[in-house]
Amino acid sequence: MAVDSRFYAPLGALTLESAAALTAAPLEGDASLEISGVASADTAGAGELAFVEGDSIAQLTLSPHLQMAVVREAVRPQMPAGVSCLIAKRPRHAHSQIARALLRPRYLGPADTQAISASARVHPEAIVGPGAVIGAGAAVGEGTVIGPNAVIGPGVQIGRHCHIGAGASLNCALVGDFVTLLAGARIGETGFGVIPGPVGLEDAPHFGRVILQDHVTVGANTCIDRGVFADTIVGERTKIDNLCQIAHNVVLGRSVIVAAFGGISGSVKVGDGSMLGGRVGIADHVKVGEGVSLAGSSGLFRDVAAGETWGGTPAKPIREWMREVAWLSKQTRPKKKD
Amino acid sequence: MAVDSRFYAPLGALTLESAAALTAAPLEGDASLEISGVASADTAGAGELAFVEGDSIAQLTLSPHLQMAVVREAVRPQMPAGVSCLIAKRPRHAHSQIARALLRPRYLGPADTQAISASARVHPEAIVGPGAVIGAGAAVGEGTVIGPNAVIGPGVQIGRHCHIGAGASLNCALVGDFVTLLAGARIGETGFGVIPGPVGLEDAPHFGRVILQDHVTVGANTCIDRGVFADTIVGERTKIDNLCQIAHNVVLGRSVIVAAFGGISGSVKVGDGSMLGGRVGIADHVKVGEGVSLAGSSGLFRDVAAGETWGGTPAKPIREWMREVAWLSKQTRPKKKD
Amino acid sequence: MAVDSRFYAPLGALTLESAAALTAAPLEGDASLEISGVASADTAGAGELAFVEGDSIAQLTLSPHLQMAVVREAVRPQMPAGVSCLIAKRPRHAHSQIARALLRPRYLGPADTQAISASARVHPEAIVGPGAVIGAGAAVGEGTVIGPNAVIGPGVQIGRHCHIGAGASLNCALVGDFVTLLAGARIGETGFGVIPGPVGLEDAPHFGRVILQDHVTVGANTCIDRGVFADTIVGERTKIDNLCQIAHNVVLGRSVIVAAFGGISGSVKVGDGSMLGGRVGIADHVKVGEGVSLAGSSGLFRDVAAGETWGGTPAKPIREWMREVAWLSKQTRPKKKD
Repeated sequence: MAVDSRFYAPLGALTLESAAALTAAPLEGDASLEISGVASADTAGAGELAFVEGDSIAQLTLSPHLQMAVVREAVRPQMPAGVSCLIAKRPRHAHSQIARALLRPRYLGPADTQAISASARVHPEAIVGPGAVIGAGAAVGEGTVIGPNAVIGPGVQIGRHCHIGAGASLNCALVGDFVTLLAGARIGETGFGVIPGPVGLEDAPHFGRVILQDHVTVGANTCIDRGVFADTIVGERTKIDNLCQIAHNVVLGRSVIVAAFGGISGSVKVGDGSMLGGRVGIADHVKVGEGVSLAGSSGLFRDVAAGETWGGTPAKPIREWMREVAWLSKQTRPKKKD
Repeated sequence: MAVDSRFYAPLGALTLESAAALTAAPLEGDASLEISGVASADTAGAGELAFVEGDSIAQLTLSPHLQMAVVREAVRPQMPAGVSCLIAKRPRHAHSQIARALLRPRYLGPADTQAISASARVHPEAIVGPGAVIGAGAAVGEGTVIGPNAVIGPGVQIGRHCHIGAGASLNCALVGDFVTLLAGARIGETGFGVIPGPVGLEDAPHFGRVILQDHVTVGANTCIDRGVFADTIVGERTKIDNLCQIAHNVVLGRSVIVAAFGGISGSVKVGDGSMLGGRVGIADHVKVGEGVSLAGSSGLFRDVAAGETWGGTPAKPIREWMREVAWLSKQTRPKKKD
Repeated sequence: MAVDSRFYAPLGALTLESAAALTAAPLEGDASLEISGVASADTAGAGELAFVEGDSIAQLTLSPHLQMAVVREAVRPQMPAGVSCLIAKRPRHAHSQIARALLRPRYLGPADTQAISASARVHPEAIVGPGAVIGAGAAVGEGTVIGPNAVIGPGVQIGRHCHIGAGASLNCALVGDFVTLLAGARIGETGFGVIPGPVGLEDAPHFGRVILQDHVTVGANTCIDRGVFADTIVGERTKIDNLCQIAHNVVLGRSVIVAAFGGISGSVKVGDGSMLGGRVGIADHVKVGEGVSLAGSSGLFRDVAAGETWGGTPAKPIREWMREVAWLSKQTRPKKKD
């Protein structure tokens, strides 16, 4: 997926040769290839530089359009013919270095001194509260209310009849119509990605967006991180309670319910109409089918098929969990004396 | 309970007849009844329209003052004589439609362009930080400090010697004296109520308030939602840690302690002097007596009598839980070789 | 440790005699001693008043420099010769009274009406977003970006090339270089300490700081409380996800990873390079060694040695936990019919 230039400013294309020089990584392949963007190895298109961590591609599905990647020496012979490679000990770290040389997030600059940027487009029928900040190139639609002290980042697009609560903030986000964010919601911050670098941990740069479809509601102080290379997506009429965490690259379907303290880890997919009770946690990359129910406090580490109801930690079908709870209680109950 | 006009503007009374027309719901009873407010079926007073979800009132205690309700066809014959009914397939949805035609939350309007509204009453001995926003009709008492960039919503009443942290926000709230809200606390947002509508999920409108009694302390980024029709109440000297969630209609007694990540679901009641460890969750409508202790990480799904100590998920008396934990550990411990 | 006068204004020294008068506590020892600060009994230096709760010092290591303390009558004879004592029924409560007479946190005052205080030192190469508030005596280094509507409290020191997210806030904090706080992070609020007083619960005053070392990252809406008398410290390159709670006096080592909803209770120590999965909770005073891994959702109540991997609630070595989970599941699985 091409990076959205409303949120990330291109700093000028690099050739694979100059990327190799930047990272001191040996190059095998076509040095003249132009790097126009960055992506993961399963989705990379023409011109996009990907990376492979670890020593094997056995668990990966490589994009058929993959042209170039940063890989370890052990992975080089496993790569398809025709893919140009930079060889690095820490492929993701080298990839991040190159990514930062290609793209700059459109954060606040020294010229951004006005609360409402001259280049923001705010509909005359929108209401903007005292202290609200609207960044360069952002747009706010008809009938939308931006609460006091809310912060709409550069390039963020907000549709019609939305309600953005007091002190909420958005970055790198596209928001549909009739969307409600309650106070303090944090949309589009960098996700939690930690890269081992030469002198310790570094933060993984993020180049994706958050998409909130029509009629989505996001609770107070809930956080929805933007994607790493792709998008984090919340489907139409999905309702998220207060103090939830929706990590990078998550895809929630339509009319999903997420109760308070719901924690959805990176790249999880949840099908339409599923219901997550309070304090449900889902481990990364798990797939939850349509119409699934997860009991409050469950911790899910495995995929769940459509229509099922699970509970417990680690979560399992609800009857199994309840049977275990009842059996354990019975085993340890003191015998009655008479 | 009558809706508080400081927070909800009446849009003019409706008759039951016009409500029927608005929702295309057949009417059985007195078409000329004036609807002056909305309420739940167990608390509705004269002039207040209630609703009954589902097909039976067997589990409900109806208010003796109930005059009119939206109900399903199956419930109509179960209702007391003299109660006028609107018949709807989705009673709560129809009720919400009517409620929105009766009352409008006093959110930000196009005229609210001043950080401190001309109609707000701020005591001369109060201190208001830079960037703080105080809405129309709000009041701030003597010696109270409103932190930088905090947002006090329209009509909110704050007593004397309170401390409102940086960036905190309040809506639809009455706050006593010597109350402390740490930074980013979110008081009085709409609670999490999801109504199935004809084309998918909708948000339940809320018409209640939050009451914080004297000497209450609310931690950083903690959320306390306002009630649906009644109030969410936090009793005197109750202390709530950071990142807690107190849902709509909860009633916490006096000197209750709620440690970090405490999650109190809708309509829960907690008695005076109870202590909730970190990450305790309580399911909706549960009643916790006075002086109860709940161990950290417990998930409570049942009522607990005064003075008891419980733990685990699902929570049970602490000795039972500890016995289960010890027994399970013993059963699975490898035998020593010699 | 001496209290940092950048954050707490001294109100003038008290003698032990005047402290006794203030709290109506009988004094045994040197009435002329000057109280210059407050501390805990294990760290108190010369001139610092400490306290002992409860009826015994058997579990305590008293500072060799301890000169004076508030104690119960039962504890008086257990104290080392030469320590002057105030005798009180509620020693911590009396100590708090005296502390408040000695020191005043430098919160917002009536003169603080400017968004950027005239006494703040902001580097010309720093960028300060619209609506940001910077308190008296604060400092912001070269290349640092202060996001829109962020609040930098009085005296807070922020180094070079930091990024403070929209609406984040800091109090009583020293921040190194290359530190990132995402939107809504709450640094340096008062920790959760509840003192039983004569008429109910009171908040424990806090006199410590938060130290964030170089390259620390703090997630959106995460809270890090300041210490009671000492500091809360986050080591170099430690990475904390969204919606975490780091309580007073916690010390996190270097390159520690804390995933979303991590809850680290008071005075916990975590060694370098440890990894805490999502929703891990650690009870107060627990010590976690270097390089420890804690599985997602674990609740840790005991010390863990370096290099171990634990899981479950209460947490235990991961193999024990997994064995218990598997065994319980097997015991309760229905027998196959044939």
